[in-house]
Amino acid sequence: MRTRVTDMLGIELPIFAFSHCRDVVAAVSRAGGMGVLGALYFTPEELEMELKWIDDHVDGKPYGVDVVMPASYAGADFAPEELVGRLQGMIPEGHRAFVDDLLAAHNVPESSGEAGKVLLGWTDATARPQVEVALRHPIALLANALGPPPADVVELAHQHGVKVAALASTPRHAVKQVEVGVDIVVAQGTEAGGHTGEITTMVLIPQVVDAVDVPVLAAGGIGDGRQMAAGMALGAEGVWTGSIWLTVEEADTPAMARQRILAATSRDTVRSRSWTGKPARLLKNEWTDAWESEDSPGTLPMPLQFMLVSDALRRIGRSDASELATFPAGQIIGTMNQVKSAKDVVFDLVSGYIEAVERLGGLEK
Amino acid sequence: MRTRVTDMLGIELPIFAFSHCRDVVAAVSRAGGMGVLGALYFTPEELEMELKWIDDHVDGKPYGVDVVMPASYAGADFAPEELVGRLQGMIPEGHRAFVDDLLAAHNVPESSGEAGKVLLGWTDATARPQVEVALRHPIALLANALGPPPADVVELAHQHGVKVAALASTPRHAVKQVEVGVDIVVAQGTEAGGHTGEITTMVLIPQVVDAVDVPVLAAGGIGDGRQMAAGMALGAEGVWTGSIWLTVEEADTPAMARQRILAATSRDTVRSRSWTGKPARLLKNEWTDAWESEDSPGTLPMPLQFMLVSDALRRIGRSDASELATFPAGQIIGTMNQVKSAKDVVFDLVSGYIEAVERLGGLEK
Repeated sequence: MRTRVTDMLGIELPIFAFSHCRDVVAAVSRAGGMGVLGALYFTPEELEMELKWIDDHVDGKPYGVDVVMPASYAGADFAPEELVGRLQGMIPEGHRAFVDDLLAAHNVPESSGEAGKVLLGWTDATARPQVEVALRHPIALLANALGPPPADVVELAHQHGVKVAALASTPRHAVKQVEVGVDIVVAQGTEAGGHTGEITTMVLIPQVVDAVDVPVLAAGGIGDGRQMAAGMALGAEGVWTGSIWLTVEEADTPAMARQRILAATSRDTVRSRSWTGKPARLLKNEWTDAWESEDSPGTLPMPLQFMLVSDALRRIGRSDASELATFPAGQIIGTMNQVKSAKDVVFDLVSGYIEAVERLGGLEK
Repeated sequence: MRTRVTDMLGIELPIFAFSHCRDVVAAVSRAGGMGVLGALYFTPEELEMELKWIDDHVDGKPYGVDVVMPASYAGADFAPEELVGRLQGMIPEGHRAFVDDLLAAHNVPESSGEAGKVLLGWTDATARPQVEVALRHPIALLANALGPPPADVVELAHQHGVKVAALASTPRHAVKQVEVGVDIVVAQGTEAGGHTGEITTMVLIPQVVDAVDVPVLAAGGIGDGRQMAAGMALGAEGVWTGSIWLTVEEADTPAMARQRILAATSRDTVRSRSWTGKPARLLKNEWTDAWESEDSPGTLPMPLQFMLVSDALRRIGRSDASELATFPAGQIIGTMNQVKSAKDVVFDLVSGYIEAVERLGGLEK
């Protein structure tokens, strides 16, 4: 299957797999698609280890890295060394009390006191070191998850022969991204898991395709070959997938989360600011409900919200309060009902795509 | 183009056009698709006149009628003759005051006192007479907009040789509809205008196609041939469209509303209960914002909400307060930027569809 995207990146199939799990990334790239490692949760040192592992397991096939450099966030003008401290001071006591009370009501044990990561790679200061690590590896693609990456980062990637992709949820975003030099726009509909806009994939893709000259990938709601064919019919030159890799054999998804996803319907997700402060589609549960309730103090802007809740989410993850365990998930989880290998998922996408295209051709007769 | 749907209904193109305007219905049917007249706003006598006009202008081509028989609504067990009076008594004074204050704040003139329709055809008592009128005309399709129609209505339609369609926003709805004898399921994604669910078209269609044996139409976000091809790639055997007919030459859409739609982006709609009490996608404006504000008393269940607001909406329509004028509109309005004839819209859908399918076929080489 050839599009401008397969030519640009030297891949056989225009199938992109976003995952935080290195095993999934390597498996999809080996199967002819392109695995893209989400760097968000990793320190630069951890990211170095993950990418080294991928280099050793990807059989020389192209792969990518995804960072999160939001165009705007609270504290963007603070000096790096005082960033965490000053941000912590911006979190109101009422918000801390709300989180404490919520966890107490669900009998979540107190924190062990161990310090976790409170500031992930979604500030300029924390994402740039990730970019530097990534560019020391033979990556083919650097993707940015929240709006246009800084122009100098795009230039740096290009100097390393690395193509740059960025996620857009409106045609206006896409135009801005192309203006700073982005090579591929990932147009992501509201049904996608994680940070997402309001416009659905069906409505968004043709608008973005018409707005920019660079190739577009369809993201949001792509889980089988029919959806891949639909995305390509809309004008995309490839598909960007995420949630479907959470339940593959290779995924390091915790057992509880995997069970929840396999059992969920497409109505069991919600677009919520309760994870990071920006709207993200999450598994709907008592956590997301609590932040929408009358008692909720409202969410804080990025990155304060995650700083506020990161310790709570870690405590929940270690407790029996699975009713509070929340994580990004797209509406496509409603169709994810069995565990397959990543290679089989790639194969099913391709064979379903071919079937759909042949069916469409037959209707015209 | 042939599918089970074109064979079933004797039409050339599997393109369905929902419209409250008889001119649009007749024009689309004459162009080879199927116009479907929304009966909601008409009394039985008015509907009789509209259908007579269509009979005289459709050149013998098949057309359909759409009614709204919700599976559940307040007052469903009241006797028809006391329905309006008892329902009026269920509307709290605080809600009436909220509407009065909102209109006063926007300088909307007082009502002329003339009695308008407060109960549209969305109760069993008001929709059945519409069905009886419709079945006296040579219609090919009876569609129901809110869940499965009553089984006896399906049987009555079948006795008249009329096929029955119903709108579904989840696979579970679709299965229930087929159980009562529905011939065609219209699977409608959240991006659609009017009453709509939460799941997007991209995610919903394959789930419904897999859940039922009858043919499925794709609805929500279908505005051009690429989107039609996408809907068919997802497994649908036709497309159901609505918002795109609001701006065609033939449409009787008020000039102000037409301008708003032509200027809108896909982010200018919102799913709101402020029109009928059930979630419907509307043009986002100061009316929908007011019902989401802190001062809002909350919306009432169907059909009380429309009884509460019907007079207000009529007053707004006659005033200069266009910032309050609200109406159903899907996200596709972001791509509706010019006025064309209904026939040209049908032609563009077909030619765009053929182009998209040929493009997809070429990628496999």
